[in-house]
Amino acid sequence: MIKIALAQINPTVGDLKGNAQKIAESIKKAKKNGSNFIVFPELALTGYPPEDLLLKNYFIKENIKILNKIKKETAGITVIVGFVDKSKLKTYNSCAIIQDKKIIDTYHKIYLPNHGIFDEKRYFSPGKTLPVYEYNNKKFTVTICEDLWIKRHQFSLKDKNLDFIINISASPFSIKKIKQRKKVISSIAKAARSFIFYCNLVGGQDEIVFDGRSLIYSPKGKLLKQAKKFSTDIIYFNFKKPGQKPIQIQSNKIENIYSALSLGIKDYMRKNKFQKAILGLSGGLDSAVTLAIVAKSIGSNKVNALIMPSFYSSKESLTDAIKICENLKINYYTVTINNIFDCFNRDLKPYFKNLPTDSTEENLQARIRGNILMAFSNKFGHLVITTGNKSEISCGYCTLYGDMAGGFGILKDVYKTSVYQLARFINKKNKKSIIPKSIINKAPSAELKPNQKDIDNLPKYSLLDKILHLYVENDIDFQGIVKLGFDRKVVKKIIEMVDSSEYKRRQSPIGIKISEKAFGKDRRMPITNNFTN
Amino acid sequence: MIKIALAQINPTVGDLKGNAQKIAESIKKAKKNGSNFIVFPELALTGYPPEDLLLKNYFIKENIKILNKIKKETAGITVIVGFVDKSKLKTYNSCAIIQDKKIIDTYHKIYLPNHGIFDEKRYFSPGKTLPVYEYNNKKFTVTICEDLWIKRHQFSLKDKNLDFIINISASPFSIKKIKQRKKVISSIAKAARSFIFYCNLVGGQDEIVFDGRSLIYSPKGKLLKQAKKFSTDIIYFNFKKPGQKPIQIQSNKIENIYSALSLGIKDYMRKNKFQKAILGLSGGLDSAVTLAIVAKSIGSNKVNALIMPSFYSSKESLTDAIKICENLKINYYTVTINNIFDCFNRDLKPYFKNLPTDSTEENLQARIRGNILMAFSNKFGHLVITTGNKSEISCGYCTLYGDMAGGFGILKDVYKTSVYQLARFINKKNKKSIIPKSIINKAPSAELKPNQKDIDNLPKYSLLDKILHLYVENDIDFQGIVKLGFDRKVVKKIIEMVDSSEYKRRQSPIGIKISEKAFGKDRRMPITNNFTN
Repeated sequence: MIKIALAQINPTVGDLKGNAQKIAESIKKAKKNGSNFIVFPELALTGYPPEDLLLKNYFIKENIKILNKIKKETAGITVIVGFVDKSKLKTYNSCAIIQDKKIIDTYHKIYLPNHGIFDEKRYFSPGKTLPVYEYNNKKFTVTICEDLWIKRHQFSLKDKNLDFIINISASPFSIKKIKQRKKVISSIAKAARSFIFYCNLVGGQDEIVFDGRSLIYSPKGKLLKQAKKFSTDIIYFNFKKPGQKPIQIQSNKIENIYSALSLGIKDYMRKNKFQKAILGLSGGLDSAVTLAIVAKSIGSNKVNALIMPSFYSSKESLTDAIKICENLKINYYTVTINNIFDCFNRDLKPYFKNLPTDSTEENLQARIRGNILMAFSNKFGHLVITTGNKSEISCGYCTLYGDMAGGFGILKDVYKTSVYQLARFINKKNKKSIIPKSIINKAPSAELKPNQKDIDNLPKYSLLDKILHLYVENDIDFQGIVKLGFDRKVVKKIIEMVDSSEYKRRQSPIGIKISEKAFGKDRRMPITNNFTN
Repeated sequence: MIKIALAQINPTVGDLKGNAQKIAESIKKAKKNGSNFIVFPELALTGYPPEDLLLKNYFIKENIKILNKIKKETAGITVIVGFVDKSKLKTYNSCAIIQDKKIIDTYHKIYLPNHGIFDEKRYFSPGKTLPVYEYNNKKFTVTICEDLWIKRHQFSLKDKNLDFIINISASPFSIKKIKQRKKVISSIAKAARSFIFYCNLVGGQDEIVFDGRSLIYSPKGKLLKQAKKFSTDIIYFNFKKPGQKPIQIQSNKIENIYSALSLGIKDYMRKNKFQKAILGLSGGLDSAVTLAIVAKSIGSNKVNALIMPSFYSSKESLTDAIKICENLKINYYTVTINNIFDCFNRDLKPYFKNLPTDSTEENLQARIRGNILMAFSNKFGHLVITTGNKSEISCGYCTLYGDMAGGFGILKDVYKTSVYQLARFINKKNKKSIIPKSIINKAPSAELKPNQKDIDNLPKYSLLDKILHLYVENDIDFQGIVKLGFDRKVVKKIIEMVDSSEYKRRQSPIGIKISEKAFGKDRRMPITNNFTN
């Protein structure tokens, strides 16, 4: 009789002792529940991805030392747990199979992802052999994340007559990933006529969020169980009573995005030991949605808002900003930037003389706001949250050291059109207009000069976002996009804006990846780049 | 008769047409000089590294189209040139062997570096075969950069009875690299009893600088010729008259660093089309050395200095700042930050009430200076150069959006102790005290509060830099460093400072790599990281 537990834990990168404790606690819990077999996610012991910690020998040594302590907890249970193994010269992304206080085998990941956000070939050597284990008359194998996605490996699993396949993963959330995962796992289960136990990591780590959602598939390729999404969980499966009926789970795109952003900020703050957050609230949509997400995720009493109006702020923006604070019960401060702006202008005048007002003065306002936010952050230790969306950041329609100043961006990978959807989702979820309709309905504006509208500088967002998606995420060139029916001049302008603002993005704070290609480790463009297309 | 030319060119990443033109011009020049064989560096056609441009199919197609145009230039000459090749599903770091307008073969790089700043496994598939070519009764092979550094490959070169080995490289400068390269190449030449023609790229590309210094080694492992360092060049070798005598070239560490920084900033400005630069001049050592390097590299008339004194600036700082501007004939502006600082303090007072003055106010001063610099940059289109050194940036002894504001850092990878050496080198090179002795001799200070000295917050630099080098560059842990005889408390404090300022470095501008491990692509640490050692 095998009773398997999949322990979907939320480790912290580098916190070997804390992670080991989480592993030990899950083992205890599973034993109590009658399990004799427990599976943990990929690199559960180190957290994922440990990045260049893996180049520090002493880090790897410490992880092996602590793995050996975990052995003590394994009386009467088989434990499958991800850790970093090392031979003389090679480092492996590995998985220990521990039984009754002994490591009976170590599997080394064969296929190392080195695309998108992944850099595994920087650190790891590939394993060579696909093991087959036997336990209580059941044949099974172990795979690590990418292994299962590679056609050749899928093929070799087919003829092994396996009762079950274990996959331990650290699979980051992105919009399309949920469906892809289920499709891949279901088809392998069917082809190998084998159960699949897929145990995924959960939690936020810098730019990425692991969504959990561990899965159990039947040999017929049917989904039998799914663990919670965006939350720790343990799910169980009993081979003696496998009579589970297939289940169907629908997944909602905007709800998933919301949950990813929510877990991302929650974990960033918790794991980096921030007690409170602060952000600049303009009365526009982006900061309103950001504030709502942060407040609902970490608690309204842990967020402060700074409203920093200027000559160019409309009365509506101010009332809207206050309204959302009231709706969310947020503590806010109002600091007018006019005096400081005047002071800068007066002191710069001798040098700028009679040159016309231009983006210099617009950026200056944004930077004064950035300074005030950072002053509050320095004085009170709050994390500054940035509010820029992906459409703006793509086009460089944002100010370095101004609205880009902060430690963590919530909407960095969310296009403006999706920000609107998020706003509506939040209001619907909370059954009231947390984000005032007036904010959703008014024309977007940076309010950095009189009567300014985003539309003066950018195409309308419904058009812009489509073109950005084709260029940034799908890597389609100018001609290709034009062929799809878009205006040549518009496409050219957008591509030029994206290409020429690489230097800004390089200095932007990290933010949560939700798309198939986010800015950050996911998209590595040179700043010096004279390619035009 | 073979007369080889090594064309050490300086391409720009992405500028396929411009690079092709450089290649065509070198071919013409070599032909004029009687050469029938010319070698270009690795990825000469695309520039190195093209990073995620390589994920754009149309970029690779365009590079192949342009390679085919280069063919026309090759009547009567053999051309070895780096480009990106593509089969159906695979992309290769390649080298075309073109003869008399025909591509006679394409070699695919076998060993792909994926360490340090290199991400080649993200893009390329490895080649499989080591080719042997024959030309005018000489047997030779072609290798690309890393190929030559791999033991197994060196071994297979040994028994091929080759007359010569070509290596096309894009080998970035770092302090120890010069010696390593010569050692490796000399020993292979000797082992294979073969000439080696090593053609390296030259030029700056974002964080890295290629130092050129192409090499010709005899089958006895002796250096016969070396191309210019940090400059374009063509060198020739005639097999009919191989009677060159071995040469000895000494390399000076500080001179190399100076040249790397100089070429780095020159190329960043030229390739990104900046006409002028601007920087903040405090009267301290770092900004003085930075200004001297920039002025000497791009011309004094292309740099402006901003002197931005406050209540806490000493009189000496102001006179020293002005003195160095006079020494270098630099146009400077003096903008006092006191008014603006007062204005911020007045407007923030209601919120900060009676809380004590702390780093908030220090950072505010730095950020006001950052804003003024950025305002000048926005108004006049100048590139803002940052002046922070590696010791500061390692410890986070710098202000985000303050002194860290700018587009390009000259001293980002230079420890303070080396900044002193650079200052002395610059004065010696120019045979006068460009950098006033008073600047070199005074105790370093950020001058952000009364009587502040760096030594109040940091260990003395001679000690700090040693520990930083062990921790950052050599990845030695706390215990290991203490064992070398350093004080436990000091080591602990430094390690904590380095670890906790990762978020700052992530938002810092790029700067020139000169060490074996620079901040940036070279060292990829997680921000969220609870590992302690």
